[in-house]
Amino acid sequence: MRIKGKQYQTIWIKAGDNRVVQVIDQRKLPFRFEIFEITTTSGACFAIKEMVVRGAPLIGVTAAFGMYLSLFEFAGETDFPDFINQKAAELKATRPTAINLAFAVEQIKNFILENQRRKDLAEFVLAKVEELKQLEISYSEKIGEYGLKIIEDIYERKNQTVNILTHCNAGWLACIDWGTATAPIYKAFRKEIPVHVWVDETRPRNQGARLTAFELGEEGVPHTIIPDNTGGHLMQHRMVDLVIVGSDRTTANGDVANKIGTYLKALAAFDNNIPFYVALPSSTFDFTMNDGLTEIPIEQRDSAEVSEMEGMANGKIRTVKIIPEKSMAANYGFDVTPARLVTGLVTERGICKASREDILRLFPENQK
Amino acid sequence: MRIKGKQYQTIWIKAGDNRVVQVIDQRKLPFRFEIFEITTTSGACFAIKEMVVRGAPLIGVTAAFGMYLSLFEFAGETDFPDFINQKAAELKATRPTAINLAFAVEQIKNFILENQRRKDLAEFVLAKVEELKQLEISYSEKIGEYGLKIIEDIYERKNQTVNILTHCNAGWLACIDWGTATAPIYKAFRKEIPVHVWVDETRPRNQGARLTAFELGEEGVPHTIIPDNTGGHLMQHRMVDLVIVGSDRTTANGDVANKIGTYLKALAAFDNNIPFYVALPSSTFDFTMNDGLTEIPIEQRDSAEVSEMEGMANGKIRTVKIIPEKSMAANYGFDVTPARLVTGLVTERGICKASREDILRLFPENQK
Repeated sequence: MRIKGKQYQTIWIKAGDNRVVQVIDQRKLPFRFEIFEITTTSGACFAIKEMVVRGAPLIGVTAAFGMYLSLFEFAGETDFPDFINQKAAELKATRPTAINLAFAVEQIKNFILENQRRKDLAEFVLAKVEELKQLEISYSEKIGEYGLKIIEDIYERKNQTVNILTHCNAGWLACIDWGTATAPIYKAFRKEIPVHVWVDETRPRNQGARLTAFELGEEGVPHTIIPDNTGGHLMQHRMVDLVIVGSDRTTANGDVANKIGTYLKALAAFDNNIPFYVALPSSTFDFTMNDGLTEIPIEQRDSAEVSEMEGMANGKIRTVKIIPEKSMAANYGFDVTPARLVTGLVTERGICKASREDILRLFPENQK
Repeated sequence: MRIKGKQYQTIWIKAGDNRVVQVIDQRKLPFRFEIFEITTTSGACFAIKEMVVRGAPLIGVTAAFGMYLSLFEFAGETDFPDFINQKAAELKATRPTAINLAFAVEQIKNFILENQRRKDLAEFVLAKVEELKQLEISYSEKIGEYGLKIIEDIYERKNQTVNILTHCNAGWLACIDWGTATAPIYKAFRKEIPVHVWVDETRPRNQGARLTAFELGEEGVPHTIIPDNTGGHLMQHRMVDLVIVGSDRTTANGDVANKIGTYLKALAAFDNNIPFYVALPSSTFDFTMNDGLTEIPIEQRDSAEVSEMEGMANGKIRTVKIIPEKSMAANYGFDVTPARLVTGLVTERGICKASREDILRLFPENQK
């Protein structure tokens, strides 16, 4: 998608240097557009942990590139499989909630171990990582096409601007291109269906106000930033036609872990009979889990993300402290929306209900 | 209550000068403690509109003092009742949602008009305003005592720290003393019942993080600031025993207008079987209205409250811009929580259900 009119993806191999991975530094957006370079596995760990990159699909692909970069770090001091397993463990330990991370790391780790005797191992692994990346892009596009149908149906009925609420950033910046929750929106916008997006600010870290608003703005999609408190009021007054969010992990039962606060919007959508869809690629399903509330690990992050706020003043990025000296803050990164509140899951294979039966209908290979 | 160990109320007549009303400047808290002086009706209007003072009960009392100050501004150019009616209209136009404002202004306006021939009119009106102020304090104290019972009951059952979630600031800073939602908490804390308060940050304007956290901290009450997105997750995991909030206007049916986002917390409390109480003095009821969703006017405020954030950096109060250049923001001040989600209303006359019948049981004089 576009930034200042130029086409980008969120991650790519540097032109002319196969040992350097470049990403958009999402810590600086929307205030600065900067490229961050990753050249080692620990660099990839840093990028994921510090949220230079974020969003479940992008975390997965970044970790895959991190596995690829580990190949240049092996100096023969230990057993090669031990070394690769160690690097995989380091990458998987960076963040606990998004399942795509473990999924991508395991996939590339196994691929490396299976092919470890090849002379052209690095090239061969890079081609595999690029394949994984292309697959994620194609998943996003397909999610966009299936989700577009939902927006088209609402537009046909309403014949007026379709108002879509989204939480956090499940946009192309969270993926490689297109996004998950935003993919249907971009598809609709390009088909000239009038859409308007209510962008939840998404405290803490403000991925809605900083990233979703930014990427929608760069693509020219009409949108309005609202505090996270506002969605319920808008839904009560029929100012929202559709809620669509992403996911960091979805269980076999259809319980959805996503950025903290998603559950509250799902409750409001349910209370007001407004469709609530979750857009996710198959890499976000965790078929080993059933009950999201008790099984999905919820990351707790630094309380400074709550007690401080970053923004622009006089052309500079500044951080201000926004709570009293004597007070503490807590920072839970995610919550779980029970399947009963989810209208449907939009995947690369089509739309299904948030139920074991219907998920397995689309993904029968996960039937045990 | 205390600030830096010293006892304060939120509004008072300046010592030695009956023509000056002093208030705590709540725009500066928690970063600076400053006193703001009001000497004219338009000064009172400014203080209410710009949120030097805020909170339904305090807005009402400030407006009452504003009516009192108008007496010194009458220069005989017009008819006295016209003049007084004009001043009342100016005060009532400052903010639309809190009903206490209209209630207090009407009361003092009528009192002035009834007593306009008195020589000692100003003194006489001041005594009436002080009486109104004392009444609000006594209401808060009684709300505290009735609400204390709820906390005591939970503590008896649980025999561990009682975790209370509150939204916005319905603390003593929103009132004259004690608060509405916080009054039971202060009463419980003074009775040495172990309490811990989850303080919703309350975007925009952050009255939770800035004011509730500040006043709880100054009284020594254990508390943790959380983003507005967090409460649902805490409730799902039984980390909240009780939700208690204030109100800006409550209809005869028991529908509750309060700071935007309250509805979302009520939904989560309902979904998790956690008691959700609203604490309010009788001055917050609007017996002329029934259906809160369609009848209560919802204030829309400046979008800069969403797009900018104030905080401390290097010992100075600074404002940073926190959204992209190309994006717009919307700022709805309040939402309406339907009576069906409210466990009970805690008033100065006791606790009742959020229903016409039970509200009129406590306030039978409003039966038509």
